[in-house]
Amino acid sequence: MCGIVGYIGKEQAAPIILDGLARLEYRGYDSAGMAVYEGNKISTRKAIGRLKVLENITRGGESMPGHSGIGHTRWATHGAPSDKNAHPHTNEAGTIAVVHNGIIENYIPLKKKMTDRGCHFVSETDTEVLAHMLDYYYKGNPLETIIKVLQRVEGSYALGIMFADHPGEIYAARKDSPLIVGRNESGCFIASDVPAILKYTRTVYYLDNQEVVVLRGDDLSFYSMDEEEVEKESATIDWDADAAEKAGYEHFMLKEMYEQPRTIVDTISPRVRDRNGEREIHIEELNMTDDELRAIKKIHIVACGSAYHAGVTGKYVLEGLARIPVEVDLASEFRYRNPLLEEGCMVIVISQSGETADTLAALRESREKGFQVLGIVNVVGSSIAREADACLYTWAGPEIAVATTKAYSAQLAALYLLAMKLAKVRGLMSDREFTALLADLKCLPDQIELLLGQKQKIQRFANRYLGARDIFFIGRGIDYAISLEGSLKLKEISYVHSEAYAAGELKHGTISLIEDGTLVVAVSTQPELYQKMISNIVEVKARGAFVMAVTNEENKAVEKASDYVVYIPQTNPYFTNSLAIIPLQLFAYYVAVGRGCDVDKPRNLAKSVTVE
Amino acid sequence: MCGIVGYIGKEQAAPIILDGLARLEYRGYDSAGMAVYEGNKISTRKAIGRLKVLENITRGGESMPGHSGIGHTRWATHGAPSDKNAHPHTNEAGTIAVVHNGIIENYIPLKKKMTDRGCHFVSETDTEVLAHMLDYYYKGNPLETIIKVLQRVEGSYALGIMFADHPGEIYAARKDSPLIVGRNESGCFIASDVPAILKYTRTVYYLDNQEVVVLRGDDLSFYSMDEEEVEKESATIDWDADAAEKAGYEHFMLKEMYEQPRTIVDTISPRVRDRNGEREIHIEELNMTDDELRAIKKIHIVACGSAYHAGVTGKYVLEGLARIPVEVDLASEFRYRNPLLEEGCMVIVISQSGETADTLAALRESREKGFQVLGIVNVVGSSIAREADACLYTWAGPEIAVATTKAYSAQLAALYLLAMKLAKVRGLMSDREFTALLADLKCLPDQIELLLGQKQKIQRFANRYLGARDIFFIGRGIDYAISLEGSLKLKEISYVHSEAYAAGELKHGTISLIEDGTLVVAVSTQPELYQKMISNIVEVKARGAFVMAVTNEENKAVEKASDYVVYIPQTNPYFTNSLAIIPLQLFAYYVAVGRGCDVDKPRNLAKSVTVE
Repeated sequence: MCGIVGYIGKEQAAPIILDGLARLEYRGYDSAGMAVYEGNKISTRKAIGRLKVLENITRGGESMPGHSGIGHTRWATHGAPSDKNAHPHTNEAGTIAVVHNGIIENYIPLKKKMTDRGCHFVSETDTEVLAHMLDYYYKGNPLETIIKVLQRVEGSYALGIMFADHPGEIYAARKDSPLIVGRNESGCFIASDVPAILKYTRTVYYLDNQEVVVLRGDDLSFYSMDEEEVEKESATIDWDADAAEKAGYEHFMLKEMYEQPRTIVDTISPRVRDRNGEREIHIEELNMTDDELRAIKKIHIVACGSAYHAGVTGKYVLEGLARIPVEVDLASEFRYRNPLLEEGCMVIVISQSGETADTLAALRESREKGFQVLGIVNVVGSSIAREADACLYTWAGPEIAVATTKAYSAQLAALYLLAMKLAKVRGLMSDREFTALLADLKCLPDQIELLLGQKQKIQRFANRYLGARDIFFIGRGIDYAISLEGSLKLKEISYVHSEAYAAGELKHGTISLIEDGTLVVAVSTQPELYQKMISNIVEVKARGAFVMAVTNEENKAVEKASDYVVYIPQTNPYFTNSLAIIPLQLFAYYVAVGRGCDVDKPRNLAKSVTVE
Repeated sequence: MCGIVGYIGKEQAAPIILDGLARLEYRGYDSAGMAVYEGNKISTRKAIGRLKVLENITRGGESMPGHSGIGHTRWATHGAPSDKNAHPHTNEAGTIAVVHNGIIENYIPLKKKMTDRGCHFVSETDTEVLAHMLDYYYKGNPLETIIKVLQRVEGSYALGIMFADHPGEIYAARKDSPLIVGRNESGCFIASDVPAILKYTRTVYYLDNQEVVVLRGDDLSFYSMDEEEVEKESATIDWDADAAEKAGYEHFMLKEMYEQPRTIVDTISPRVRDRNGEREIHIEELNMTDDELRAIKKIHIVACGSAYHAGVTGKYVLEGLARIPVEVDLASEFRYRNPLLEEGCMVIVISQSGETADTLAALRESREKGFQVLGIVNVVGSSIAREADACLYTWAGPEIAVATTKAYSAQLAALYLLAMKLAKVRGLMSDREFTALLADLKCLPDQIELLLGQKQKIQRFANRYLGARDIFFIGRGIDYAISLEGSLKLKEISYVHSEAYAAGELKHGTISLIEDGTLVVAVSTQPELYQKMISNIVEVKARGAFVMAVTNEENKAVEKASDYVVYIPQTNPYFTNSLAIIPLQLFAYYVAVGRGCDVDKPRNLAKSVTVE
């Protein structure tokens, strides 16, 4: 997500921090800031927009002379991009400064508690609450205070912290967000990503989850949450700068595929909360009372590309769980077909960038007609986020690869939450079902991790199809939606002409394209459709197809019918897209790599399509 | 449609008639019958099912010894397949026998008139009314009587007629349905198609529209409707038997493409009638009062393959004209997605054969749930026709080629009628608009004829793409629906991997497949979308695509943007599919022919898909 850089040592800190942040620019950000010791106080500079702005107001860092500081490039989650939402955040006295990556899931009750205790918040961020809490608990021992605060925090974080009365120290801690510590002969560094400090050192220490580190100019100490010191070995980075940007992955796409478990946690966890001992789904962003949610008569989902495919899945999940009729439209089509929107209908637009021109236009048209529009968007403060009546953020972090993976996964997760919320308030789901679904949701990140672990197997398989001209994806129901996305992934990065078909529809024409050896990817994750899918597999095999099946572990019958099987772990049938898409992403990726394609920047495509 | 064979001469008639009918079997039929002079009376035999049954009950014709007779294989239109609906039909006394191809459009008022005059009808056919009318007007002169009756008849016909008191004569007449007359040294023949008599003679006379012919054993006389004798030249058939089956066309598909103007007339004309001097659309088959039509809240269209594409167009036309929300589903998907059908919703299933397994299953499920189902079906008495609450027949006649052309065109026409009817009863269409739309409908057959006339131009163009691996079709709105069908036609018979895309969606991934020289067929028939389509054309051209545009004559801007243009004549934007599909059918056909594919029987495909 955002970028963190910190330095303490013999050199002037600000220029090093600016240089480090510049090396993280490719990750995307919307504002930047720095805090540097000057004398015995902490001086802070922040600016919305390009890093260049911060460089200009600090004259390349020269105007901030201290030897110790922390910096941050922000990619908005809670609160739009702005000067005041930029990091570092401080307590009211300005004696404690914090930079933060990640999401504080329980920041709302924490913020309330701090407000009740008299704190004044100046930003809309989740981060600021940490500065106030550190101030509230601080009695002179930074380490003890940090641990006390972190024990009260839920969510993910990588933190850099400075206390004005400890000018010789920088503190850092992490949980579920990356943070590394570096060291050279001049001093010590912290960074959210390797490229930020690669110019200065290749000696790094990997901070583990729930560890705190104290940086002094020439010394490092690591501590557990029990305040016990931890011994840590250094490691040497042997990546070049290019590989470092991708955290060692060959491509951003692969890196982002590996960020999917995290992405799903970040999208789901903050919205599942305890109330009176019971788990509940809270989506404050909706700004709708339960009565209003109950009154929704119909949902129109409008999107483009992969977001449209997430919408197709959303239709099944929303109709199935919440029993609300859902119509899904391509944004470019929706606008021009004079759509009949009935009273009580809600429009949901889905877009990673929040700037997709067709989707934005559909939003505007719907609002003009007087309909409520909910955006499901990844980029905070984007046009769609601003113009929608409500916005459910996916918090997948910046996505660099043109072919989306983690944003798509986050969109699915957001739709699951919405469907469950609607089903619950409409009285269509028992507590038991709800609890079971929540448990399945919670397992998804680990299950995705497991599937990502099969990458070598998928790569070996993909290598057999580098010369393929035509590949087909078939499925029924949600499996058809999965096929659509699997096929798009493949075609957009590998330029293989693949096509997804509803499995039962293939025989009405397209099956004539199946030749000896044509690869057909059959997705079969819906138990009540197993038998039908096996018939369709047999149909294409009879025409000579080679069938790769993606199915559930329990579905052993498919193994006999197919030539190659990838199993996905057990989950609720409504959630299988989140798992089945992983091997298909890997397949697309390795076919493209094998064919020597420019995976992260496929020809003819743009990341954010801001033309119609 | 159905088959007619007649003989009068020195040989025994029945075996010749049976042999001739057998040669028309490939056309499809559901029952057969013969009438032969025996002594001074007419003896009739009819049987539902295969021709074999009729052969058995007449011992190969031996049990009917006469030298003059007419025979018929029926393909049901009005009235289900049955013994009593089979032809020949007779007057009550059995002294006049008639076989008929075509449709008597005004048979309902004629039948009422004859019933009022005391006639008893035994069949549900439109044909039977002719036998009763001939009887009613008959005063001893068959020619005069036939002309009198035909002047009271609207619609199309090819007729063979016998009068018991004129044993040495057979009469025949035609309008808009084919009928040829043959002659050899033994006698004279009539036949609906050349192959029926090719074994006996190659000397034929082409009966013109609204002509009557009198066959005697060794003599022929042709008459105009003014009872004036007409001179006629004979022609010599030089086709072989195989070509003869296809009426001289190289393939059934091409023949059926050329039958489309007729098909549209047959589907539309009988349902557009005068009432008090005003034109009205009557669809009695609906069995719904105007109040019931007004009460329809939503329409679900369910179909497979090309019928599904007709349904996609139907959505635009029905929503646009009748302002009823329409959802279109693939039948194989509809059944398994637990569809939410609301009260007041009507389900429309579309199927050429009326036996499509998935569609039939969707019909049954909808009816079980208590919803009204309307079938749009080509085969009378088929399962869907029988099980639907109401059935709107397309009357396209039997379709032999696996790739549908004329049945698809007829489905479109049926949907236009339905949309206009609904718009009218719901008060959404002024008389002026209605009249203008009717006028446009009426022009379609001639306009299609015009487009078919461009086949050489399209063939030349198609020949440049015989080696194409990938072809894309793009369009917006109805043009997207046209693209879907144009693409399916191409892929199913030529095995070129073509794919249709909503033009605005291409840039969200699939545009990466466009390479230098890739053919993109851009359909642009919707004036309000011209500009948007030109942008999409420019997009693909910028990636090297060669663009063939199909657009309206007025849209000259597209000529600059594209590499090759096919213009379609002016019609209402809702009806453009009926025209724009013609060059796309021709293109698909000539690519397949050029590649040496088995056009009428593409690999892997069946005409009627009776499995799921």
